[in-house]
Amino acid sequence: MLAMRDHDQLEQFGTALNPARTAEFMEGLSSDEAWGVLSHVEPGRAAEIFLYFDHDRQIEILSGQNAEEIAELVAELPADDRVDLLQELDADRASELLALLPTNERREVQRLNSYAEGTAGSIMTTEVARLRQHFSVREAVDELSRQSEHLETIYYLYIVDVDDRLLGVVSGRQLISALGKPNIRLSDLMATDMLSASVDEDRESVAQKVERFDLLAIPVVDSNRKLVGIITHDDVIDVVREELEEDAQMLAGVTPLREDYLRIGLASLSWKRGMWLTILFVTAMFTAFALKNYQGSLEKYQWIVLLIPLIVSTGGNSGNQAATLVITALASGELSHRDWHKVLMREGVMGLTLGGLLSIIGAIIGFFFAPTWMAILVVPLTILLIVMLGCIAGSMLPLLFSRLGLDPALMANPFIAGIMDIMGIVIYMNVAAAILG
Amino acid sequence: MLAMRDHDQLEQFGTALNPARTAEFMEGLSSDEAWGVLSHVEPGRAAEIFLYFDHDRQIEILSGQNAEEIAELVAELPADDRVDLLQELDADRASELLALLPTNERREVQRLNSYAEGTAGSIMTTEVARLRQHFSVREAVDELSRQSEHLETIYYLYIVDVDDRLLGVVSGRQLISALGKPNIRLSDLMATDMLSASVDEDRESVAQKVERFDLLAIPVVDSNRKLVGIITHDDVIDVVREELEEDAQMLAGVTPLREDYLRIGLASLSWKRGMWLTILFVTAMFTAFALKNYQGSLEKYQWIVLLIPLIVSTGGNSGNQAATLVITALASGELSHRDWHKVLMREGVMGLTLGGLLSIIGAIIGFFFAPTWMAILVVPLTILLIVMLGCIAGSMLPLLFSRLGLDPALMANPFIAGIMDIMGIVIYMNVAAAILG
Repeated sequence: MLAMRDHDQLEQFGTALNPARTAEFMEGLSSDEAWGVLSHVEPGRAAEIFLYFDHDRQIEILSGQNAEEIAELVAELPADDRVDLLQELDADRASELLALLPTNERREVQRLNSYAEGTAGSIMTTEVARLRQHFSVREAVDELSRQSEHLETIYYLYIVDVDDRLLGVVSGRQLISALGKPNIRLSDLMATDMLSASVDEDRESVAQKVERFDLLAIPVVDSNRKLVGIITHDDVIDVVREELEEDAQMLAGVTPLREDYLRIGLASLSWKRGMWLTILFVTAMFTAFALKNYQGSLEKYQWIVLLIPLIVSTGGNSGNQAATLVITALASGELSHRDWHKVLMREGVMGLTLGGLLSIIGAIIGFFFAPTWMAILVVPLTILLIVMLGCIAGSMLPLLFSRLGLDPALMANPFIAGIMDIMGIVIYMNVAAAILG
Repeated sequence: MLAMRDHDQLEQFGTALNPARTAEFMEGLSSDEAWGVLSHVEPGRAAEIFLYFDHDRQIEILSGQNAEEIAELVAELPADDRVDLLQELDADRASELLALLPTNERREVQRLNSYAEGTAGSIMTTEVARLRQHFSVREAVDELSRQSEHLETIYYLYIVDVDDRLLGVVSGRQLISALGKPNIRLSDLMATDMLSASVDEDRESVAQKVERFDLLAIPVVDSNRKLVGIITHDDVIDVVREELEEDAQMLAGVTPLREDYLRIGLASLSWKRGMWLTILFVTAMFTAFALKNYQGSLEKYQWIVLLIPLIVSTGGNSGNQAATLVITALASGELSHRDWHKVLMREGVMGLTLGGLLSIIGAIIGFFFAPTWMAILVVPLTILLIVMLGCIAGSMLPLLFSRLGLDPALMANPFIAGIMDIMGIVIYMNVAAAILG
């Protein structure tokens, strides 16, 4: 079809299937060919299909094709996606496209651009259904069919006053149920006690509200309670996924990538890993200095040396388990730093149980390595103590950082790793000294 | 109000605010008192408020109060929540309540109960808007207002044939836009090319579809394409969160809790941590046997011993970083095991860069500990090799497990930890032997 430049058939291809499926069929095409198809489809539909292309292809098309035709497509994208994409183009191309956008869309981009990353403002879209409270159900429906092509969602309809201040909300479902009585006013239907987000609120806190109350969307208001936008459920899924991925990465000692693994620049990737690897390396260096203090005993009891890596890694593993459980529980809101005494109790019990379990295996190992019956005791006792310390330090440090308003996932890991490495050595050497004399 | 048993005021309290807010106001009450309030509110509204109570309170109320009154409330809960809650009550109480439910609701519970955990069937609700294709827009609206109180969502309206087989979908938005032409038939509006999930499909794959295509809900069909239920966006957010939490927990060597940290039994928590701690302990034991092989050199070069924990933990940290990045990228669908050669290239470069960086610091440490200029070389060379191995093994093992159809988060961690611990020792000792002779 492309080779024949068959406009009608290409247009039909673009409208027959749902946009997601159409995009899938086009996966085999080059970016130029894909644009060749899209340019024959009307811009609204083309934008829908474009949204399902993968990110690299989106950027290639936006960067490479005729600016005027591209601007038509960009004008049809949802406001939040439009801003995100323009931010990733090179600055010249972005301002070229921006200049070609209709005034309203251009203003919207500039407005959304002005909110700091990580805030509600930065993830909202400004395309939201606004109605007035004196509208009847019939008037509301008429107004909605007029507005609907510019709206991302009409599942909640927000009622505003003359100054755009948020007064209430009517759900799409309520409106459909009320169609039998078309003269009822929206002021009689609307709920006035509703949740909203403020533009500068942290996006994670907004996501938690939407998640906790199973909302489809949440209105975003500025400091004067003026309705400025809406955050929809799909943006919230993205936030939940990103925040949890970031937590997992921080737990492994990586500054969150915030980009796809295969797409992030190697310099940036080196920095995000190298920084923490260096911090962890420097804290682990203290183990060498700690061991140096005990060099006398090490020369005397050679067998002790053989078990050092085992002891150190067991302490690290138990601390890591406790820290991860507490950090995931904090992230999902199951736990707050106020629960620290309950956590302390649980981890005390866990430390005794898990430490006790590993001590038994430790005693068997001790039997193979230690020269006397007395010396065997060193291994299980050290393991019991180090596992208990791991459970307690691993669980308490994240709670402490959360209490101090710091991100527990980011701060806890190097501290816990450092403490466990050094304390592993210190406990081991002191237990050995106490028992072996 | 409770003390006065003031029915009117209690009823008013239950309806004045939105259900979420009402539930918040009731947080200070005991479960008995909370039920005292709810029992004065009409069951549909009471069920909405009840859904916002925390989980412990829900179970307490369902377990403790008059069975007949409770059954009325349970009948009003969404089908998926109802099944989940009944499963957590003790068996006698659950069957007592089940017997008191209206026939339809009872059948639904039995049906949902029959789907295996982790499948689409187990998280769907059966309350879904069904319409026939010969309906006009006007008839559809009438039918919807009739059905609407039993429906969890009316954002998508599914069109079925006489045998309940799924034919197409009309969005609530389309229906509102079409209200101007009330005689159009649904068959002219509906899209027939739509996504659906099958009842026995893995819930993670369903969540990915909904997420990828920004759906509000997805219909669930059985093997005959019969419409059996719907999975809504809020269930999908829950799945995304749970799956990512499980990945984070597996990465830390914990079998996923699948319950709140503060609520899970200590026996179960010990098992889920103890099992992996033991596996990791046993793999780490091999470090002791490996070291034993090199006992001769260790006695000769005492200073080597002091750096063992540093070398081992640096290898572990670099492996952990690479593994976590690959596993989070696999989970979000950015990466597939087919990309292994791109990952290998990247991690080769990262290994050289990060290993090179740490080698410089390693050389400085070597300067403090090693007795000769030649001996200083041992430390940076070991670190370069171990960090390279960490990057490559840490990134390739999860891809290999994913290729074999195993969960990369679950399988990769003990293998990587074991390999890095032992290889750390082996590389260190061999580098030392080669350089020091």
